[in-house]
Amino acid sequence: MNVKELVRSMGEKARNSAAKLALATASGKNAALESVAEALEKDKSLIVAENEKDLDQGEKDGLSAAMLDRLRLNEKRIRAMIDGVGEVARLEDPVGKVYDERIRPNGLRIHRLKVPIGVIGIIYESRPNVTVDASALTLKSGNAVILRGGREAIKSNLALAGVMSRAIESAGLPAASVQLIPTTDREAVGELLRLEGLVDLIIPRGGEELIRRVAENSRIPVIKHYKGICHVYVDRDADLVMAEEIAFNAKVQRPGVCNAAETLLVDEPVAEPFLKKMIPRLKNAGVRLVGCERTRLIDPSVGVATEDDWRTEYLDLVLSVRVVNGIDEAVDHIERYGSRHTDAIVTGNEKTAEEFVKRVDSSSVMVNASTRFSDGYQYGLGAEIGISTDKIHARGPMGLEELTTYKWVVIGSGQLRE
Amino acid sequence: MNVKELVRSMGEKARNSAAKLALATASGKNAALESVAEALEKDKSLIVAENEKDLDQGEKDGLSAAMLDRLRLNEKRIRAMIDGVGEVARLEDPVGKVYDERIRPNGLRIHRLKVPIGVIGIIYESRPNVTVDASALTLKSGNAVILRGGREAIKSNLALAGVMSRAIESAGLPAASVQLIPTTDREAVGELLRLEGLVDLIIPRGGEELIRRVAENSRIPVIKHYKGICHVYVDRDADLVMAEEIAFNAKVQRPGVCNAAETLLVDEPVAEPFLKKMIPRLKNAGVRLVGCERTRLIDPSVGVATEDDWRTEYLDLVLSVRVVNGIDEAVDHIERYGSRHTDAIVTGNEKTAEEFVKRVDSSSVMVNASTRFSDGYQYGLGAEIGISTDKIHARGPMGLEELTTYKWVVIGSGQLRE
Repeated sequence: MNVKELVRSMGEKARNSAAKLALATASGKNAALESVAEALEKDKSLIVAENEKDLDQGEKDGLSAAMLDRLRLNEKRIRAMIDGVGEVARLEDPVGKVYDERIRPNGLRIHRLKVPIGVIGIIYESRPNVTVDASALTLKSGNAVILRGGREAIKSNLALAGVMSRAIESAGLPAASVQLIPTTDREAVGELLRLEGLVDLIIPRGGEELIRRVAENSRIPVIKHYKGICHVYVDRDADLVMAEEIAFNAKVQRPGVCNAAETLLVDEPVAEPFLKKMIPRLKNAGVRLVGCERTRLIDPSVGVATEDDWRTEYLDLVLSVRVVNGIDEAVDHIERYGSRHTDAIVTGNEKTAEEFVKRVDSSSVMVNASTRFSDGYQYGLGAEIGISTDKIHARGPMGLEELTTYKWVVIGSGQLRE
Repeated sequence: MNVKELVRSMGEKARNSAAKLALATASGKNAALESVAEALEKDKSLIVAENEKDLDQGEKDGLSAAMLDRLRLNEKRIRAMIDGVGEVARLEDPVGKVYDERIRPNGLRIHRLKVPIGVIGIIYESRPNVTVDASALTLKSGNAVILRGGREAIKSNLALAGVMSRAIESAGLPAASVQLIPTTDREAVGELLRLEGLVDLIIPRGGEELIRRVAENSRIPVIKHYKGICHVYVDRDADLVMAEEIAFNAKVQRPGVCNAAETLLVDEPVAEPFLKKMIPRLKNAGVRLVGCERTRLIDPSVGVATEDDWRTEYLDLVLSVRVVNGIDEAVDHIERYGSRHTDAIVTGNEKTAEEFVKRVDSSSVMVNASTRFSDGYQYGLGAEIGISTDKIHARGPMGLEELTTYKWVVIGSGQLRE
């Protein structure tokens, strides 16, 4: 069997499994998740041994220490994966929910019924924990998944997927509910993206380059998880102590993630008192600062921000700072340079807050809170498969519910169209 | 300006208009719709004159009488468009709806807010009424639209879009809320499908070939409106009189539309009595019948159904008939040959009905009702922009609500991530 045939046959198996998964009860799916958690525990040493092989190969291939660290599966990380599976088992099952009920004048009783999407393809890079997290979420929402991980993690991922697949089967659900493409051949991705009618949705997770390539080549709907160029805007009516705490938290608490702030916008009337305190604090925490001219007049030690800076997701202890004239300039800046991920205003003025919420076209808009809260767990979704920067189907954190669709159910008593 | 620059500049204008439309009130949008309705009335003769030019050109180009008829705008059809705009004005505005509210343990108040999608590109064929219907729906839902109609209707469509655009502007909303690509150059579509960041969603409406081409070439999310291979399954526990009426209505009442039935599945135990009455009635109504072997044993005048027949959307007075052994075979047939549009069961057995609803993976599943009810007006959506055969974002009839997305709004009092 060549690569194309292999991937297509995986698609067919996934489609068959999806039909069965769609009929599974919440308790049946939970039993399968418990079985997965137990199997991961039992087969820990197998998983670590396969992971060692990836790490050896990675060292030979000259992966950076950071990359190797991301790839490593140790006791603690396997424990975290197992706990994650248990948490997903405890979440409410969205499938089967009836909503939007109506009775039409002709007596037809109509409602929408939440159902799984079907078969989901997930294309991701390096961290092997995604293999387990994504499988748990798709299984709980009644979807079959085809996983395509990074080449560096192929042995770890195959071990994890194999353990899960066997555990799911032993709990009475289809083994092919979770499948991992067993080759690193690039052609496999191309074929996956052409499986219309077998695969219903593609979710790419990783760098911008990966996501763009997938979006350009897919014939299947894609939900994109692009970068976060998140802003904190400190309004003239802000509590400046609160503003300082929020801006500091949004930048420094965990700079390497998509919901960390990259740009600080400060309203002109409060720019001087605010930045005089904010800049030294950020510098003390090791943050490199670049700013507009007005910022540099207030503190000449700040570097020059170029046009590129406003469009950059640093994912690091770097922050660009701009002084703006009120909410109009702030919103214009966000519209022009932002990535529609998460943006926050700090203000004590309710009218200004309301306007900011209305006008900023981002998946999450925050008032007096750190951008770092943009997250499925923080929103109470229980877990997330990613943060969508698309506007179609799911926006912002994608939890179990966002992994479902609906069908219209129409119950009649012999009604005919006239 | 070349075609690419032209289309891109339209995208930029649409993006600016969308930002303003998102802030428009329901009454502001309704005033614009009233203004459109009045302008269409006032400029009727201009529209008819431009339509005459298309018709003249169409005759020269050898369009069929049916095509010319679809293209024609007369008093009655313009009246229907105007009435349609009035109806959309009277629909409830989905934008601004707050839902899914929650207060988190840390005090964050979180909700989802319904907002317009932004800029929608609609690519369609021939009928000029789509120009008006689609514009009314996108305007009411706060979206800017870029229209790309068929080459046969270019002058009619430009006249309609021009009248609407001026009317919207005179009501205080942006003229570029509605724009029609003024050239029939094919390159224009290619460029439209590449306007990532400016256009948020593409909806193609027309033949399968058009939709497939759009889906393959678009970098922007597409919601597809593919064909309907709809089934009526007559179960062993059906009221056979009701079944006969429903099957007849689903096939004959309007055979040229996507929610008309193409295949009749009959459960073995009732096949003979049912088909002995059904087949003559269908033949009397001019329906050509093809069937499986068992059907032809019951009535040898029925033609032979080939494998292709089960996959064909006839859109005509043709019906394929198959005798199946119970719900399992019926569901398997629908899964294998159907298009996941609309499928119906006729049965008096609630358990069987429930199983059919669960197992059939179609956008609409009906019990004891004609497939012809799969329609936005019939479901009480007020209007529809089409019937999605995709599973992502919108499934089945797409009304105003399906033309919106949401943002997460997070209201804090200084919360920080730990």
